[in-house]
Amino acid sequence: MILGRIVGTIVASRKDPRLEGMKLLIVKPVTPEGGDESGYVIAVDTVDSGFRETVLMVSGSSARMAADCKDKPVDAAIVGVVDSVHLDALHEAELASSRRK
Amino acid sequence: MILGRIVGTIVASRKDPRLEGMKLLIVKPVTPEGGDESGYVIAVDTVDSGFRETVLMVSGSSARMAADCKDKPVDAAIVGVVDSVHLDALHEAELASSRRK
Amino acid sequence: MILGRIVGTIVASRKDPRLEGMKLLIVKPVTPEGGDESGYVIAVDTVDSGFRETVLMVSGSSARMAADCKDKPVDAAIVGVVDSVHLDALHEAELASSRRK
Amino acid sequence: MILGRIVGTIVASRKDPRLEGMKLLIVKPVTPEGGDESGYVIAVDTVDSGFRETVLMVSGSSARMAADCKDKPVDAAIVGVVDSVHLDALHEAELASSRRK
Amino acid sequence: MILGRIVGTIVASRKDPRLEGMKLLIVKPVTPEGGDESGYVIAVDTVDSGFRETVLMVSGSSARMAADCKDKPVDAAIVGVVDSVHLDALHEAELASSRRK
Repeated sequence: MILGRIVGTIVASRKDPRLEGMKLLIVKPVTPEGGDESGYVIAVDTVDSGFRETVLMVSGSSARMAADCKDKPVDAAIVGVVDSVHLDALHEAELASSRRK
Repeated sequence: MILGRIVGTIVASRKDPRLEGMKLLIVKPVTPEGGDESGYVIAVDTVDSGFRETVLMVSGSSARMAADCKDKPVDAAIVGVVDSVHLDALHEAELASSRRK
Repeated sequence: MILGRIVGTIVASRKDPRLEGMKLLIVKPVTPEGGDESGYVIAVDTVDSGFRETVLMVSGSSARMAADCKDKPVDAAIVGVVDSVHLDALHEAELASSRRK
Repeated sequence: MILGRIVGTIVASRKDPRLEGMKLLIVKPVTPEGGDESGYVIAVDTVDSGFRETVLMVSGSSARMAADCKDKPVDAAIVGVVDSVHLDALHEAELASSRRK
Repeated sequence: MILGRIVGTIVASRKDPRLEGMKLLIVKPVTPEGGDESGYVIAVDTVDSGFRETVLMVSGSSARMAADCKDKPVDAAIVGVVDSVHLDALHEAELASSRRK
């Protein structure tokens, strides 16, 4: 899974009937420290997440294991809203050190 | 899923029999703002999409969940035509700011 | 799926018994305009393709849907020989313009 | 599979019910020599691993084959704690040589 | 599938019980000409391959189709030892030409 931030939604009236009623969100992948990664993914929301929330996203066939995604043409699903991220203190120190350089 | 724009078609007369009758489109991945991303994907069209339309594309085993793709050697399918993209205002402001730099 | 060009073959006498008798081709991914992309893939040939032909290649679990690949340890299969590629005129104009820069 | 180092955890109280009780770890991919690779993955821990340990991580549908991950929306799982890495002496010499350049 | 060269092994005593007895090798992806590609993959050996051998590796769910990998948390398996690679003469000429530049 990866972390992402909800940055938008898409509307598609002509679509596969099994996607009817699903909320399609634009997810920007982010690092555990909150920085933006490259690219975007369109994911189905299964946990009622909202704009700017940091979420947990699952990809590939496992996205079809998310709630109400069984047998649907879906390859990315939001399966959690992240409350907090805890980094190992040593790793945080390394990150701070590499940023100072 | 990702967003893409239809930029062409391919013709293949010698092919797997289960691909007979399927429209094979050349999809250019695009960002939510409409900019081109790198690379191309060949996808099966399942929603009667056309040149220059922005579409929703699903990849991997989930492409076989699209209409008429069951058990077929297909790893990318167009499953929606995008009417509109809505970006969070804050995210749009950040994008505009990063472009000005 | 992606487009590729057949650039070679590999011989492996010691291999998984279910790969016996399968033709293993070296595929160079190409763009719709015929330019080389980075990397190589080893794919099973299911449509009797030959050197220098442009082919349609499917990846992942969907490669096991290709002819005679069911339940085999195969993650890439050639499922079509491409006769022609048709690019949207507008997209071609953009490509030509970006090459002139 | 890839090697990774545990660098943190995430907490998500609102999540898919099938993720309840699973430990979600932040994994930094590493090379066999222990150097950091780019990016991060959020993986389910199935072998009781801890901060700074080097682990073996499996991705995609195969992550659902890990202990207690069956039919769950999980695309990455930690399935081993690495005791030691043995590199071919010739390969080590090449690495050392390329670092001196 | 891709080509790789065996450059090492890993030892993990604490691991998923279904990985017991499997040889876990460090594979360096290589080009058909034998040059190193970036990164490393940890793969299960199913054809008794050895250090420095060039092998054929399958990834994703298809790795579970390799001998003795069924239903195991394995996403990469070595399924062949490569005897020889045959490149199309024209492609070889292009490679030689691009190296001279």
